Amino acid sequence: MTYYSFDNESNLVADEYFMSEALKEAQKALDLDEVPIGAVIVYKNRIIARGHNLSETLNDTTAHAEMQAFTAATNHIGGKYLQQCTLYVTLEPCVMCAGAAFWTQIGKIVYGARDEKRGYSIFNEAIIHPKTTIITGILEQRCAALIKGFFQKKR
Amino acid sequence: MTYYSFDNESNLVADEYFMSEALKEAQKALDLDEVPIGAVIVYKNRIIARGHNLSETLNDTTAHAEMQAFTAATNHIGGKYLQQCTLYVTLEPCVMCAGAAFWTQIGKIVYGARDEKRGYSIFNEAIIHPKTTIITGILEQRCAALIKGFFQKKR
Repeated sequence: MTYYSFDNESNLVADEYFMSEALKEAQKALDLDEVPIGAVIVYKNRIIARGHNLSETLNDTTAHAEMQAFTAATNHIGGKYLQQCTLYVTLEPCVMCAGAAFWTQIGKIVYGARDEKRGYSIFNEAIIHPKTTIITGILEQRCAALIKGFFQKKR
Repeated sequence: MTYYSFDNESNLVADEYFMSEALKEAQKALDLDEVPIGAVIVYKNRIIARGHNLSETLNDTTAHAEMQAFTAATNHIGGKYLQQCTLYVTLEPCVMCAGAAFWTQIGKIVYGARDEKRGYSIFNEAIIHPKTTIITGILEQRCAALIKGFFQKKR
């Protein structure tokens, strides 16, 4: 597994663009009073799937942004595997979503903010597929601020 | 977390009955040429949700028996949490399904065969919710034989 803060300058521009799209998805979750987490999946520089947290709306704790994006992406690709795809997600995937990412063999995961409580990396970094590249810290402060603001309002 | 091989004699009878129902689900997967894994969720001694592996049929590597059963059970209950429920599944849950079980706060998980490759317990036993009881080894040989037979035929 390879961790970078970012790959190089041109990738950083693309990564920030796609993360801002994931942030738009997170905003849709916020508008529904859901924990604001959003995701997009990119294939050949095009967004092929989008998802935002719908746990409350669907009464389903498994309705995370990533899970919906994985299912939508495999539908789009017409295959089970996402080796050529990148997942952009505003928060570090939880164990469930990282476990799902393993099964899809997704090529790259780019996440914004770390999840110090339920992020997969706290439990075992080997949950992720050995061929999946992990990039962290893209638009980290915006991603983190959105979630922090949500929980502060709730208190 | 509490591990038992079984609770007591009357529970063992119930556990074997519900595991045999999970095995019927696994058989449905086998009939579709899917890896034969099945699950049921029980609430107040009644099966409220069923699921079997549909990864190939749905072209979706996240379509595990347990994931479908969790979503069906929360639909049935009309709430997000399954604290009063028991999941019976023929194979030890993978990281994804164990991570999903955490979010549902399910009361008890009973599984048949161990998964020495992708079972959650290899990665971190704390993936499971601290209030979830784990029971293993119910109809273990039947559960294991079904999966082993499937892979032997494939070779």
